Amino acid sequence: MTAEHGARAALMRAADVGDIIMGRLVAQYGAQGAVEAVRARALPPEFAAKEAQQERPPDLTARLNAWHVRLSAANPEADIEAGAVSGARLIIPGSPEWPTQLDHLGPSRPLGLWVHGTADLRFSCLKSVAVVGARAATAYGAHVAAEFGVGLSESGWTVVSGGAFGVDGAVHRGALVADSPTVVVLACGVDVCYPSSHDTLFAAARKQGVVISECPPGVHPTRARFLIRNRLIAALSRGTVVVEAALRSGALNTAAHALSLHRHLGAVPGPVTSAQSAGCHRLLRDRKAICITSPEEMIDLVGVLGDDLASQSRAPAVARDKLSEPTRRVLDAVPARGGAGPASIAVAAGVGMDATISALGGLAAAGYIERTANGWRLRKQLTAYPKAPESAVLDPPPTPEHTDPTQDLPFPDDNLFGPG
Amino acid sequence: MTAEHGARAALMRAADVGDIIMGRLVAQYGAQGAVEAVRARALPPEFAAKEAQQERPPDLTARLNAWHVRLSAANPEADIEAGAVSGARLIIPGSPEWPTQLDHLGPSRPLGLWVHGTADLRFSCLKSVAVVGARAATAYGAHVAAEFGVGLSESGWTVVSGGAFGVDGAVHRGALVADSPTVVVLACGVDVCYPSSHDTLFAAARKQGVVISECPPGVHPTRARFLIRNRLIAALSRGTVVVEAALRSGALNTAAHALSLHRHLGAVPGPVTSAQSAGCHRLLRDRKAICITSPEEMIDLVGVLGDDLASQSRAPAVARDKLSEPTRRVLDAVPARGGAGPASIAVAAGVGMDATISALGGLAAAGYIERTANGWRLRKQLTAYPKAPESAVLDPPPTPEHTDPTQDLPFPDDNLFGPG
Repeated sequence: MTAEHGARAALMRAADVGDIIMGRLVAQYGAQGAVEAVRARALPPEFAAKEAQQERPPDLTARLNAWHVRLSAANPEADIEAGAVSGARLIIPGSPEWPTQLDHLGPSRPLGLWVHGTADLRFSCLKSVAVVGARAATAYGAHVAAEFGVGLSESGWTVVSGGAFGVDGAVHRGALVADSPTVVVLACGVDVCYPSSHDTLFAAARKQGVVISECPPGVHPTRARFLIRNRLIAALSRGTVVVEAALRSGALNTAAHALSLHRHLGAVPGPVTSAQSAGCHRLLRDRKAICITSPEEMIDLVGVLGDDLASQSRAPAVARDKLSEPTRRVLDAVPARGGAGPASIAVAAGVGMDATISALGGLAAAGYIERTANGWRLRKQLTAYPKAPESAVLDPPPTPEHTDPTQDLPFPDDNLFGPG
Repeated sequence: MTAEHGARAALMRAADVGDIIMGRLVAQYGAQGAVEAVRARALPPEFAAKEAQQERPPDLTARLNAWHVRLSAANPEADIEAGAVSGARLIIPGSPEWPTQLDHLGPSRPLGLWVHGTADLRFSCLKSVAVVGARAATAYGAHVAAEFGVGLSESGWTVVSGGAFGVDGAVHRGALVADSPTVVVLACGVDVCYPSSHDTLFAAARKQGVVISECPPGVHPTRARFLIRNRLIAALSRGTVVVEAALRSGALNTAAHALSLHRHLGAVPGPVTSAQSAGCHRLLRDRKAICITSPEEMIDLVGVLGDDLASQSRAPAVARDKLSEPTRRVLDAVPARGGAGPASIAVAAGVGMDATISALGGLAAAGYIERTANGWRLRKQLTAYPKAPESAVLDPPPTPEHTDPTQDLPFPDDNLFGPG
């Protein structure tokens, strides 16, 4: 844990999630600068002057007081300690695991993310689709959501959604059934199970994917947190598809975030007699969303023309020589046949356990390795390519055209593998 | 019956429906000129020369021979006599009842139309919507079609469709239940009942609306006739809505005609798990059709902004002073209270029985009169307007803005009430 982690953990207690004034303060003075200013109850005069020129100038004094009171009560070391005990990690902008597409959120970019699970968040979201919809899903909506979870996963796309009943739960279950990582974005602390009957689901998601939140540990969900959470679901993924939504539904809020972020938006039609499809039909009618009737059509929308759909390629999405040093060592330690557990791979690679688990998640999401009943092993090469000798795993695997992994991503300025 | 009627009835026997070469021949030399040329087996040389310059020049000799043989066997007087006996009338371009929006079909405009029923075809189609879809409709599709039949009718819109099982039948039944005219477009003679179990339905449609066809009496349906018939359904109405359609469905053919005629096109979504909605979803996905979930949304699409939807107005669509002389006399003879049968109205108006029936249908479609259990009577004025004294029925009824009835029609060059 660095001082930056501590400062951000403190600010995550001080400011509400998505507080754009805090976002601008941190952007200009750094997290530690912001902490100092809040502690001293004195904002830099030039910052205050600029905020006063906003179209709707905030009540800076009140805001600063609120931050100050909360910051005084915050104990970031205890938060990080509690996270570590429960198995969660705090990632911040600049962390190797940070999904840089979140930068598109501007001042509402989260200050940090609590991540709990074996997958690497950044890798998992490289090719990801948000599947959202009604809590009060119909049997039809739950069926379609599960099909999308299975179908997207089987084509190598990670599913991102909330943790609610209905569509959220169904799509995660589909991804888990397909033995794929899944990304659950909560509106409460990652150690809080809401809804509580989803404890088994969240445990499975942590085992195979990640459960994440921008709320500090122990924080309970509120309506406002659900709405502000939705921007993360939209921003993490290349596109959002709404499976079922009534005319007033939180899923439409996620859809609006996707549109404002210029991400792709799809809507699944349903019977016109179903109120739970009325929101989807409104999106289609207003031509805000594309009509999506299958996972393939969603991949067609968010994928790369001639790559994702035409070939249904499962070749690694990222060139081997772009991998970070520890990730490459982990990859070299993964057996081609049989399988190995994370512990033996960590030993063979000479990389720490946490870093190994993170690298394994990333390598799986990027298509290099797969999880079997016997543990991790190298993924079989596509039959379209000449069968490689076993030593070939040390060479870059055959990535059809795009050795530059950024070229098929709609997230600009994303150097994929970060500083790691 | 005029010589023009006879010539066209003969040509309708000689040429296949939708024969565009015959269409061009008649356009240039008139129906009687075309009959003479076919009888003499000699096309005008300049016509033949021009046809030879078409991108795919037709085999004119073969075509002329076919026409000649069939014309020799034709007996137009017998056709018209048979029609009259069965109760059908032949209308041709220039007839007061001819829907001039069919002119948009260019050379494939029908040579004439056999019309059987009490309604006036032209009046009925002034504000009309084609509702089409799968023969093998699901319970969902049949339900939605019936709802559209009722809803469109209750808002003063006439339904146009084929006579098939499934969506066609359901939408007509909805219109009939709403006690409104309906337009059934057959791909066989109007005296042929196909499918035969629709005899009751067609009888009801004749009583309240019209059953029409461009095929001469006695002609049986073929696949080609169904497809060419679809252009009439699209051309008669201001817009087409597809309720259910598989990926290969005749309804999509009607949709293509509507698009090529620049008419509005809507598609009703359904469950993505239903193959009978896949064609609708394709239209939505390709952004060829607007997503339509209710009759109101279809009216919003084809209607006049601020008139048809905003007010849900049931005011007459056509100004009284634009009515033809006999229609005006019939209108003056319709009582304001109680009701009167066509026979007593005909006597009071001093207009023949056939013309009276036709005028009544037209006046009902245009919103002037309504059918009650006691017969025809003037429609109650909108409550939004001051209650008019009874003598006010002799003045033009209050038509909100548009005294020019052509202004809310997408059919250009349409002088609505023809030469009558």
